[in-house]
Amino acid sequence: MGNGKGLTPQGEDFSAWYNEIVQQAELASHSPVRGCMVIRPYGYRIWELMQAALDGMFKATGHQNAYFPLFLPKSALDREAQHVKGFAPETAIVTHAGHAQLEEPLVVRPTSEAIIWPILGDWIHSYRDLPVLLNQWANVVRWELRTRPFLRTTEFLWQEGHTAHADEAEAEEETRRMLGVYRTFMEEWMAMPVITGLKTDAERFAGALRTYACEALMKDNKALQAGTSHNLGQNFARAFDVRFQTEEGEHVYVWSTSWGVSTRLVGALIMTHGDDEGLILPPKLAPYEAVVVPIWRDEEQKELVLEAGAHVRRDLEEAGVRVHVDDRDGMNPGSKYYEWERRGVPVRLEIGPRDVKAGSVMAVRRFTGPDADRKFPIPVAELPVRLPALLDSMQGELLAAARERREAATIRGLEDYAEFQERMDTVGGFAFTGWCGDPACEQKVKEETKSTIRVIPDAEFRSPTPPARCLCGEPSVAEVVRARAY
Amino acid sequence: MGNGKGLTPQGEDFSAWYNEIVQQAELASHSPVRGCMVIRPYGYRIWELMQAALDGMFKATGHQNAYFPLFLPKSALDREAQHVKGFAPETAIVTHAGHAQLEEPLVVRPTSEAIIWPILGDWIHSYRDLPVLLNQWANVVRWELRTRPFLRTTEFLWQEGHTAHADEAEAEEETRRMLGVYRTFMEEWMAMPVITGLKTDAERFAGALRTYACEALMKDNKALQAGTSHNLGQNFARAFDVRFQTEEGEHVYVWSTSWGVSTRLVGALIMTHGDDEGLILPPKLAPYEAVVVPIWRDEEQKELVLEAGAHVRRDLEEAGVRVHVDDRDGMNPGSKYYEWERRGVPVRLEIGPRDVKAGSVMAVRRFTGPDADRKFPIPVAELPVRLPALLDSMQGELLAAARERREAATIRGLEDYAEFQERMDTVGGFAFTGWCGDPACEQKVKEETKSTIRVIPDAEFRSPTPPARCLCGEPSVAEVVRARAY
Repeated sequence: MGNGKGLTPQGEDFSAWYNEIVQQAELASHSPVRGCMVIRPYGYRIWELMQAALDGMFKATGHQNAYFPLFLPKSALDREAQHVKGFAPETAIVTHAGHAQLEEPLVVRPTSEAIIWPILGDWIHSYRDLPVLLNQWANVVRWELRTRPFLRTTEFLWQEGHTAHADEAEAEEETRRMLGVYRTFMEEWMAMPVITGLKTDAERFAGALRTYACEALMKDNKALQAGTSHNLGQNFARAFDVRFQTEEGEHVYVWSTSWGVSTRLVGALIMTHGDDEGLILPPKLAPYEAVVVPIWRDEEQKELVLEAGAHVRRDLEEAGVRVHVDDRDGMNPGSKYYEWERRGVPVRLEIGPRDVKAGSVMAVRRFTGPDADRKFPIPVAELPVRLPALLDSMQGELLAAARERREAATIRGLEDYAEFQERMDTVGGFAFTGWCGDPACEQKVKEETKSTIRVIPDAEFRSPTPPARCLCGEPSVAEVVRARAY
Repeated sequence: MGNGKGLTPQGEDFSAWYNEIVQQAELASHSPVRGCMVIRPYGYRIWELMQAALDGMFKATGHQNAYFPLFLPKSALDREAQHVKGFAPETAIVTHAGHAQLEEPLVVRPTSEAIIWPILGDWIHSYRDLPVLLNQWANVVRWELRTRPFLRTTEFLWQEGHTAHADEAEAEEETRRMLGVYRTFMEEWMAMPVITGLKTDAERFAGALRTYACEALMKDNKALQAGTSHNLGQNFARAFDVRFQTEEGEHVYVWSTSWGVSTRLVGALIMTHGDDEGLILPPKLAPYEAVVVPIWRDEEQKELVLEAGAHVRRDLEEAGVRVHVDDRDGMNPGSKYYEWERRGVPVRLEIGPRDVKAGSVMAVRRFTGPDADRKFPIPVAELPVRLPALLDSMQGELLAAARERREAATIRGLEDYAEFQERMDTVGGFAFTGWCGDPACEQKVKEETKSTIRVIPDAEFRSPTPPARCLCGEPSVAEVVRARAY
């Protein structure tokens, strides 16, 4: 295979490739607790960079962070009928504490509606108390039978937004606003294009009125639900009796939303950009945007190149670039190149004695567009300007490449069911088709093709001429995006 | 009582004052889950500011964040004998998940040594892998019988550092370094002076070789353990068989440390500075360092002062000040003053029509030293320079005042047991006394006086002439700091 530790090529076994890259790039490792992963420092740093960007966007849209308990009383989960039906089968239950059996078992939160709503009732009395715009960064637990690092784990980290509004229009606006925030983050930070739209009733969040989602296409042409935003209507307000007094003195139930993204996004990042050499990270979310590899043969050269490396690091840090100098002894430069490529660092800066003499470094890009050079010298004095510009351009190229790949794996206008089945079996990818609106038809296609309706796409993604017929031959009532998915 | 909602004076009932201020300043509220609090946005923002400062200091000392599972297999907790003895009585146990009984119950982490060490064994092989310098921001659960918001809750948020080293000296150095980081944070950010030192064997962390602590004195003259740093020796390495190959080829157990601070620090902050008017926040940790209160009588004035307020906010935000404009309608300025004083905002900036005309704002400090004016005008043009300087000075004054208060409540050289008992019963505070070194004597004094040995203080805190005798009359082997504590 010619790649050292032996990374399985993506084309041979994408799933094996994924598991190996998670291990080899030191993103996560298994733990002695079934289904729970350990997020290693390199993987956690990616999550921290994601958190910082998202948190800034949440605050800029008026949200404040808070923290609600890890445990829900079992009776609280039972209050909203659809919600308990959706979540009860996958909960972890605390029955004993402090050496005694609990009177009422506690549920480890799978999501926090059932603990937040009983409390928000105490905070909301009048229209003056609205809107309430909260977010929480937390761990949640869903007892999954089949788990994979980042994509589906028993415990995962996420943020969950929870908001309360005076009327439906405002709740709907908030739901859509946060879907837009997610899309912006996914495209501008993760360089991952997404299709946004509405989930069908069958795929809706348990307890929601409407669920919107961002759907991305991984490199194996399987779809991944990357983030969801729910208009919860008055369902939770009714279940937990949360009413407010309007300006006119009436007492009415509040309208609420919730929205979340999780450490699953790290998995999405890996599968959107990685290649057979390893991880590829968009500069904005790379723990190190550049790694300096000093090259020496003797002590004299070592001193020279390490000094130059330290100088470059200082300059770049001042320019706001996350940079690491790999000065490990007893490891040849080639092995270092190999390791940092495997770990997806966008730019490598090689500094040998001749580079020092020439006053430049050799820059090597982890990925290139069709016309760009992979390797070229940059004068040290120009680095603080040219490297940020290069990283910026690479960020954009990565998004363009991912979009192009997704478009190549997208088909529109399919009406023939056999053709659709053939497409799912061979190419995979997104298929824009018609839908008769019947949940029974949706279920039948799911069982027969293992594909699901990902979303009823938002207007900008729809085909100029929407399909006239559903895959079942009945007239279509809505264009939908179908795919096999994670 | 003349203070509106009725805050109990500290001198009357400190504990009632504390509970009321937590509610009235909207720092936290109770939840339907026994012993678990809800951290409200204002309280959580203080914690976020603490996190940001500490996280920066951890990274500056070479640590990386990671994330380990919430659950520990029960058998893992049982591996280190002292550790399980210390923590088993207060654990919450998951026995069921996904509708089925678990083969082995899971423990919700009370601290993470028992899940981190089985995993670190896979990461550490050679001396080249050391040191490992990790930190984790997480929630932990300890089933406490008597809880109080922030000070002692069943679930709390904290950070736990975990490091591995090649030898004892390096582990000890790390333990002391992080104790120093905590002290710096507590003094420079929280404006809370602390005494650092070694815990006695009786007060040591379950499983540690040596535990060091930062001890602060609250305004009711009770001590509070604000942070601990443990040299774990080779105890966990032995329990989980974590060995590394030395440069000489030997296989030896690693040395480890752990250290942590928690949301308890928010409680410490409240009880170090608050007064009968409410919370007092050090500027560096205040969600809002300044609040602008525009004052108007009619629409024309309203437009004028709101515009001036927006201008001031822009200027101050550019100068890096966290500022909020309280433009609420239907609430008189006096009520706003009252609310922000209760919530501890360091500086209020009043802007009325006359101030706008004069090109100035009226600054009102939440607290003043003996010689400072409480209220004075500042020209708007000078705000971006003068306000940061004022906040900086207030930060220093707050630390000085807290230090003075602590010193006034500290006594040294007490050898007479009756006098000591009298002191604990009346003043409280810190008492530097001798100690015979006998745990039985330590226990007896604890039972009889409800005071404990907080620490064997570090050199700089010790008395010039250490006490010759213990409270029991035997010769002293070490000067100790005693106090009644939270």
